[in-house]
Amino acid sequence: MAYTAVELIELKRDRQTLPPDGIEWFIDAYTKGSIPDYQMSAMAMAIVFNGLDPDELAAWTSAMIASGDTLDFSAIPAPKVDKHSTGGVGDKISIPLAPLVAACGVAVPMMSGRGLGHTGGTLDKLESIPGFEPRIDQARFGEILRDHLVVLAGQSDTMVPADRKLYALRDATGTVASIPLISSSIMSKKLSEGLDGLVLDVKTGSGAFMDELEESRELARTMVEIGAKSGVETVALITSMDQPLGREVGNANEIRESVEVLRGAGPADVTELTLALAEVMLELAKVEGGRERLEEAVASGAALQKLKDVAAAHGGDVSVLDDTSLLEVADREAVITAPEGGFVTRCDALTIGLAATRLGAGRERKEDDIDRGVGITLSAKIGDEVTKGDPLAVVRFNDEGKWEGQRDKLASAWSISPDAPGSRALVLERIDSAQI
Amino acid sequence: MAYTAVELIELKRDRQTLPPDGIEWFIDAYTKGSIPDYQMSAMAMAIVFNGLDPDELAAWTSAMIASGDTLDFSAIPAPKVDKHSTGGVGDKISIPLAPLVAACGVAVPMMSGRGLGHTGGTLDKLESIPGFEPRIDQARFGEILRDHLVVLAGQSDTMVPADRKLYALRDATGTVASIPLISSSIMSKKLSEGLDGLVLDVKTGSGAFMDELEESRELARTMVEIGAKSGVETVALITSMDQPLGREVGNANEIRESVEVLRGAGPADVTELTLALAEVMLELAKVEGGRERLEEAVASGAALQKLKDVAAAHGGDVSVLDDTSLLEVADREAVITAPEGGFVTRCDALTIGLAATRLGAGRERKEDDIDRGVGITLSAKIGDEVTKGDPLAVVRFNDEGKWEGQRDKLASAWSISPDAPGSRALVLERIDSAQI
Repeated sequence: MAYTAVELIELKRDRQTLPPDGIEWFIDAYTKGSIPDYQMSAMAMAIVFNGLDPDELAAWTSAMIASGDTLDFSAIPAPKVDKHSTGGVGDKISIPLAPLVAACGVAVPMMSGRGLGHTGGTLDKLESIPGFEPRIDQARFGEILRDHLVVLAGQSDTMVPADRKLYALRDATGTVASIPLISSSIMSKKLSEGLDGLVLDVKTGSGAFMDELEESRELARTMVEIGAKSGVETVALITSMDQPLGREVGNANEIRESVEVLRGAGPADVTELTLALAEVMLELAKVEGGRERLEEAVASGAALQKLKDVAAAHGGDVSVLDDTSLLEVADREAVITAPEGGFVTRCDALTIGLAATRLGAGRERKEDDIDRGVGITLSAKIGDEVTKGDPLAVVRFNDEGKWEGQRDKLASAWSISPDAPGSRALVLERIDSAQI
Repeated sequence: MAYTAVELIELKRDRQTLPPDGIEWFIDAYTKGSIPDYQMSAMAMAIVFNGLDPDELAAWTSAMIASGDTLDFSAIPAPKVDKHSTGGVGDKISIPLAPLVAACGVAVPMMSGRGLGHTGGTLDKLESIPGFEPRIDQARFGEILRDHLVVLAGQSDTMVPADRKLYALRDATGTVASIPLISSSIMSKKLSEGLDGLVLDVKTGSGAFMDELEESRELARTMVEIGAKSGVETVALITSMDQPLGREVGNANEIRESVEVLRGAGPADVTELTLALAEVMLELAKVEGGRERLEEAVASGAALQKLKDVAAAHGGDVSVLDDTSLLEVADREAVITAPEGGFVTRCDALTIGLAATRLGAGRERKEDDIDRGVGITLSAKIGDEVTKGDPLAVVRFNDEGKWEGQRDKLASAWSISPDAPGSRALVLERIDSAQI
């Protein structure tokens, strides 16, 4: 075979099917730089319009994986299962989830990312633990996983370099919003980890990347199918992201809440979602016991101990996990109060996430620094009844000017009505390969 | 206003309308290099899918024109009218047309191109006249136009640099096939010439860029509308390009045939199309006399004298125009003969154009040299009756190996049938701004 880049772009433009070896060559040449950015951006835009069918997508994802190193933990006998979330506000689930599942005998080689835009990043949150170092080499990654069955690291630069390059290009060319490109980006990273199973937390609602349920479903189905075609059983839960998860938004704040979950004292929604995802991970690992076993791991303290063990292995000072009042906290405090009495009918995740970011808890641009002590503690969420003057949120910040700019925007996140709202389930749907 | 490149790409991707000042900024920044190729290629692909509406297209074309120098011949009192052809095989029309129209008092500041692929280029053909130099500066361009009312030059590097850059990018990114991008590319070049009117020869058929009539119509309508919005009255003729124009294909060959037309002894189709386009040019220039005046300019020898004058002004040795047997001719000759008797029902322009190119008369890549003495003289065209063994074409070439590779392909251009074919008009439709 011999394709030119233009021929392949034209095939996709004209809704023809890209041949698997053509995809393999295109991605390899792009990674090596012999296909320039301007050809990849034309291809990406053609994919935005014409998509990729399941076979093309499997080939595309495999080619992305083949662009770099992959992990092989076959020397570790435990089943390897990971979770990926499409991202939301207050989504600290990875932090209690990974140690909890590991405490039940499942290896969790978790690679997480940084926050950008209105969503936080697991690595940023973990760095609120003094000394915690998520950037470790592959040898150390394997050691921590072997010793503790859980590792909480950043992605290595040598894995999926095609995704790193393509992701930056898509960001600059209006080609982010494409289910096949999003799916292959996520799945290529996860499938490089040498997993036996993968659970996906696909968010839907105002604080999610996709706010329409049907779109979230399509994303979930697409990723589950890529997993199935790659021989890694994948299950997706579609979960609500209309309001933030839990009561804490911000980096140190979310570590505090994660510890509460592992002490059995977390907010109902974070606890429920952690257990729901953990149950699927045990199922994928073919580990018996289900929810009962998970609850036992919390009650016995084994799960919290796992978090402390893995944090220590990453160089973290775990005294902050024993006493979370030692975690960083910003100097100033302000309270948002209810302008009237009634039921909270809206507690908008996107608005709260953006306010937290702009107060310093997140990044608007990749190069921004974050302020780990900045955070928003929600006092009232959807369904709560408040009287006029009750606190809706307590905000910690360091920069008075930034706070002045965010106060009204943050206050606009809540709606209060005389009528109690209907309830929306947290876990809306499960999508697995039997449905594809 | 302040747009980012990504915002504008996303607008077009999402079928929104690009604001005129956004288009202006995007093209200007691209020309200057502050918008990189990868953003322009994403934009171009989004335009391939979602098009440009008439107002966007007018703004896009204006921005392309504004990227470089424009010509101003207001000091020359004669009306200025030019012609553009979308290109075909044996299309030497510019060479007799421009002097003919100039001989009737209309200024024709013609800028032409080089051949690429299966079509020849007017500049390559003109260079068959020894010494002819189409690369002249703007001052000389103005002098020749003033002195002779006609100039036959290449486009200056300082005009429409955005088009030069974008055209090369489109070629490498599968974004050539877009009526708005084709239209704005053609029209930006022509509208930079400071014209009062423009006639477009939009080809349809196997040897044309577009072989479907409806597509050629849409291209014609789009360009006529751009002209109208820019205040340059534009008329398009849609003309048939199923078989080559005239009997000569090749560079020196087409100069010979052009001289025949200006002597009143050219083939019927070339003569007819030259007169039809010339009539429209007189009409656009508001010069009286129509076809009668044109025929008189041929009969009196004034038109041929104009060609000799302009060729001499470009440094050409016009003795080859007095005696065309002095034009270069390749050493070897071969004849394609009819394999059976009957009527010619097909004389395929694309096949003949490709064979001529591969024998050396054209370029497969921009950097190729051409062989001006190579040519194909058609002995039989659609509707002609032949008996077995009659010549279909006489081929002149220099490279025996190339001829061996092309002989059978060239022979396949003709179909012969016992039944005479129906006739297809040469000029199929006229599209002017009254129809938009």
